[in-house]
Amino acid sequence: MSKKINLVIWNEFRHERNEDTCRAIYPDGIHGLIKQFLSENEDLDITLAALDDPCQGITDELLEKTDVLIWWGHMSHHEVSDELVEKIRQRVYAGMGLIVLHSGHHSKVFKAVVGTNGNLSWGRDQKEIIWNLNPSHPIAEGIPEHFTLELEELYSEPFYIPTPDALVFGGWYEDGFMFRSGVCFNRGLGKVFYFQPGHEYCRSYYNPFVQRIIKNAIYWAKPANIGYTVPEGAPCLTFKVTDEFNK
Amino acid sequence: MSKKINLVIWNEFRHERNEDTCRAIYPDGIHGLIKQFLSENEDLDITLAALDDPCQGITDELLEKTDVLIWWGHMSHHEVSDELVEKIRQRVYAGMGLIVLHSGHHSKVFKAVVGTNGNLSWGRDQKEIIWNLNPSHPIAEGIPEHFTLELEELYSEPFYIPTPDALVFGGWYEDGFMFRSGVCFNRGLGKVFYFQPGHEYCRSYYNPFVQRIIKNAIYWAKPANIGYTVPEGAPCLTFKVTDEFNK
Amino acid sequence: MSKKINLVIWNEFRHERNEDTCRAIYPDGIHGLIKQFLSENEDLDITLAALDDPCQGITDELLEKTDVLIWWGHMSHHEVSDELVEKIRQRVYAGMGLIVLHSGHHSKVFKAVVGTNGNLSWGRDQKEIIWNLNPSHPIAEGIPEHFTLELEELYSEPFYIPTPDALVFGGWYEDGFMFRSGVCFNRGLGKVFYFQPGHEYCRSYYNPFVQRIIKNAIYWAKPANIGYTVPEGAPCLTFKVTDEFNK
Amino acid sequence: MSKKINLVIWNEFRHERNEDTCRAIYPDGIHGLIKQFLSENEDLDITLAALDDPCQGITDELLEKTDVLIWWGHMSHHEVSDELVEKIRQRVYAGMGLIVLHSGHHSKVFKAVVGTNGNLSWGRDQKEIIWNLNPSHPIAEGIPEHFTLELEELYSEPFYIPTPDALVFGGWYEDGFMFRSGVCFNRGLGKVFYFQPGHEYCRSYYNPFVQRIIKNAIYWAKPANIGYTVPEGAPCLTFKVTDEFNK
Repeated sequence: MSKKINLVIWNEFRHERNEDTCRAIYPDGIHGLIKQFLSENEDLDITLAALDDPCQGITDELLEKTDVLIWWGHMSHHEVSDELVEKIRQRVYAGMGLIVLHSGHHSKVFKAVVGTNGNLSWGRDQKEIIWNLNPSHPIAEGIPEHFTLELEELYSEPFYIPTPDALVFGGWYEDGFMFRSGVCFNRGLGKVFYFQPGHEYCRSYYNPFVQRIIKNAIYWAKPANIGYTVPEGAPCLTFKVTDEFNK
Repeated sequence: MSKKINLVIWNEFRHERNEDTCRAIYPDGIHGLIKQFLSENEDLDITLAALDDPCQGITDELLEKTDVLIWWGHMSHHEVSDELVEKIRQRVYAGMGLIVLHSGHHSKVFKAVVGTNGNLSWGRDQKEIIWNLNPSHPIAEGIPEHFTLELEELYSEPFYIPTPDALVFGGWYEDGFMFRSGVCFNRGLGKVFYFQPGHEYCRSYYNPFVQRIIKNAIYWAKPANIGYTVPEGAPCLTFKVTDEFNK
Repeated sequence: MSKKINLVIWNEFRHERNEDTCRAIYPDGIHGLIKQFLSENEDLDITLAALDDPCQGITDELLEKTDVLIWWGHMSHHEVSDELVEKIRQRVYAGMGLIVLHSGHHSKVFKAVVGTNGNLSWGRDQKEIIWNLNPSHPIAEGIPEHFTLELEELYSEPFYIPTPDALVFGGWYEDGFMFRSGVCFNRGLGKVFYFQPGHEYCRSYYNPFVQRIIKNAIYWAKPANIGYTVPEGAPCLTFKVTDEFNK
Repeated sequence: MSKKINLVIWNEFRHERNEDTCRAIYPDGIHGLIKQFLSENEDLDITLAALDDPCQGITDELLEKTDVLIWWGHMSHHEVSDELVEKIRQRVYAGMGLIVLHSGHHSKVFKAVVGTNGNLSWGRDQKEIIWNLNPSHPIAEGIPEHFTLELEELYSEPFYIPTPDALVFGGWYEDGFMFRSGVCFNRGLGKVFYFQPGHEYCRSYYNPFVQRIIKNAIYWAKPANIGYTVPEGAPCLTFKVTDEFNK
C-alpha cells in the first residue's frame, strides 16, 4: 500500500511551444501544470512525456512500470505510432489506468482502447457549467453540485462513445449545447476516464475543481490488486475444478 | 404478434379539472391528449384512468391485462393507496411496462418500482432543449439531435436515481441547469422509462417529438415474450439439470 | 479519513438459538462470527443487532450513525417492521452502505431498497464453485480466479433482480445450476452488495475468501465524501447558475 | 419496414474444407448451416463470405450495404487484413450490427470493435448447460430457463471483456467452470453480440435454441432508424441552439 503510484503525464506539447497564446497560459506545457498541481500528492511518482521526446516520450521500460497514464493530444494524433498505441492498449487491458483529456477523444489511444470513433461536434469557446451527475462516485469526491468555467471549447452531443460504465459529469454550454463531460469505461482489467475540459487556449486546468477531478481520477484508475497471476493470452486448462472438492 | 397492446394512461387529473390555466391547455386532461395523439396507432387498446375514478382508476382486472402503464401524478401522490402501488410494482417485476412522466418522479409508484427517493431540484418554467444522447436506442427512433421546448418546468441535477440502464435524453435549461430527461430502468422482467417533460402549465405534450418519444417508449416497454412459464416466488428445485444429458 | 467506519451486523438470529445444528456451527450467531473475523480491522466500530433485540436491533440513533449495514435474515422477513425497512431504505439512498447476505434476497430491506421481488429458485445443499468475474473490482481484491465451497444451499438463475451495476462473482453448482452470486447496485448515494453464500446449515462464513469478500465489500460500500450538502426532498431553486459568470 | 435485412455470414471456412471431422458435421461450412436454418426468415437477404474468397469475402460494396455481419473465425485470425478490420469497425460504429461466434472472441474484428484483448481460458470438449440470465431481453425471446449442449468446447472465466451492456446467457460446464456465454455491447451506433457455442468439432449449431438465439440476435442487432443524418468526423458547429427559440 505504501508503494508509490507511477504516473506518466503525456502531452503533445506543440501548441505551448509554437503559439504565444498557449505558452502564455501554460508556459511549462499542460503536462507541466498538471504535474505542478499534483506536487502535494507525495504518493505520486510523476514522469512527464511529450510527442517530440525520444520514443515519443514512452519507452517500453517506462510503460511497463506505469500505473496511470494521462493523455493530452490534439493536432498530431496521426503522428503517434501505431506500435505505441497498441502497447498502451494492451497495458490498459492488463490493468493500467488511463485518463484521456479534452481533444484526446480523437486520439488513437482513446479510440483503440475504448472501441469508438470518438466523434462529437465542437464549436466556439464559451461559458460552460460542469454538473455533478454522480456525487457518490470516487471521481466526484469533494466536487460541488456544479461549477463554472468562464471559457471552454464547445464539445457537443451526440458523443458517439459506447455506453459509459459510469457517467460522472455533464457539461452545459451557453449556446444551448450539452455534453457528457466526465465518463468512465472498464476495459479489461484497466479503468479509463475521459474528461472534456482542457482547451489549449483556455485556463481550465487552473480551476481547483478540475484539478481535484483529475487527482481523484488518478487514484480511482490505479491498478487493482488482482488476487492471482493473470495469464497471457488464452491458456489451455488441463484440470477439473471439480477435482478440488474433498481434497 | 397481432395481439393488441393494452395501454392504460393514468392521470391524477385534478389540475385540469380545478385550474383554468391547465384546463385551457388540456381540456380532456393530459391523459386525454396522450390518447388523442396515439389514436393512429391501431395496435394500441387504450384505457384512460384517473385518481378519482372508482378503485383509483385501476381495478385488479384491468391491471392484470395491462401491457404498458403510463403514469402522470403530482400533488396527490400521497393519496394513491399503498395496496395499488404494491400491485403495480409486482406487475412491473412480472413484465408490465411502465412509463412515468414529469412530476411522477416523486410518485409512490416510481419510487417503489425503481428503488429511489426520486429527489431532484426544480424551479421556474423556462426554455429547455432536449438532447438525443442515444440516437440508436429504440426510444430515440426518429428523434433529431435536439429539439426545443419553449417553456418547461426546470428539473435539475443531481437527480438521485439509480444508475439508469440506458440514458436516452438530456435536458439543457436556459438558467444554466441540466437534467437526465429520459432514462430507462430494467426492473425484474419489466421495463421502465422516465421522461421529464410535461408540466401541467406547459404545452409539451403537443410537441411532435415528445409525442414520438412517448409512442416509441410504449413499444419498447411492452412485455417480452418469455420462453417459459415464470414461477411465482422462490420455487424449490427437486431435479438435477445434469440428469438431462444423455436422455 | 481516520474516522472509524460504523458497521452494524444485523442477524435474524433465530436458527442459531433454536436449532442445534445451526448453533453448533455458529454458536455466537452468524453475526457473531462475522464480527470475529473482522476483529483485526481496527478501523471498524462494530455493533451487533438481532431481530429480537429492542427496536428489532436498530434504533433511530444507531441507524443515523451507521456507515455500513450487513443484513442476514431468512424465516422471519415478514416480522421486520415496515417502518424500520423504510428508514433503512432512505438511509441507503442518503449514502449508507448495505450488504445483504444469502437468504436476505427475500428480505423486505433488499426488495425495497433495490426495487425487486428478489425471486430465484433454490434446492438441496451441494458443492459450489465461486468464480471471479470481475477481478479488478474492489470487492474482488485478493480473490483467486475461483474457490470452492464444500456445501452451500443451491440458489439458481433466473434471479429476477434488476441489471446489476457490477457483477463480481458467479456460482457454479454441482447439479448443473448457476447463479450471479455477487452483485452490486447503486441506489441513490448508497452502494448495495448482495452475496449469495451463507446458508445457516453450512460453514461458508469460515471460508477465508468469503470472509475477504465481506471485508472488501464493507470498505467498498462505506459512504462517499460528497462535495456538498445534499438537500432533503426536492428543493425549489430560486437562482440562475448563469448569474455566476463574471461575478 | 418492408426493406429486407442484408445479412452477411462470414466464416473462416478452412476447418470444414480441410478436416474430415468438421466437414462431416458441417458439409457446407458453418456459414452454410447458419444460412440454412435462417432460410424460413424471408425478410433476410443472406450473403455467404469466406476468408479465401476474393477480397477475403467482403468487398467495400458488400460491406456498405450490410445490415448485420456474423463472424466465425479461429486459426487464421491473423490473416484477416487490418484494412478490412478497420472498415468493419467503422461500419459498426456507424450502425451495422455484429454477431461474433465462438472462437471469434480472439478475432481482430471483435478485439478492435469492442476494445478488448478477448482473453479467456479454454479446455476439453464437455457438457455445457446454457442458462437464461435475462429472460426479457430480445435475444432471449422464446428461450427456456436453460438448455443443454451435449458437447462444447470449454471456455472459462475470467473472460477479460469490458463490462457488457447486457449479459443474456451463462454457460455451466461439467468440469466446474463457468462463462458469460452471451453478451451484448453497444459500440457507437452499432450493436454487438458475442455468443460462445460453436466449436467446429461440435454440433451446437444444430441445436434449435442456439439457432433461435442467433435469429433473435440478428433482429436485435439490425441498424436503428436514426432520426437525423449522422455527420462524419467531428463537425464544427457555427450556430447557437438558443437562437431556435421564438423563431
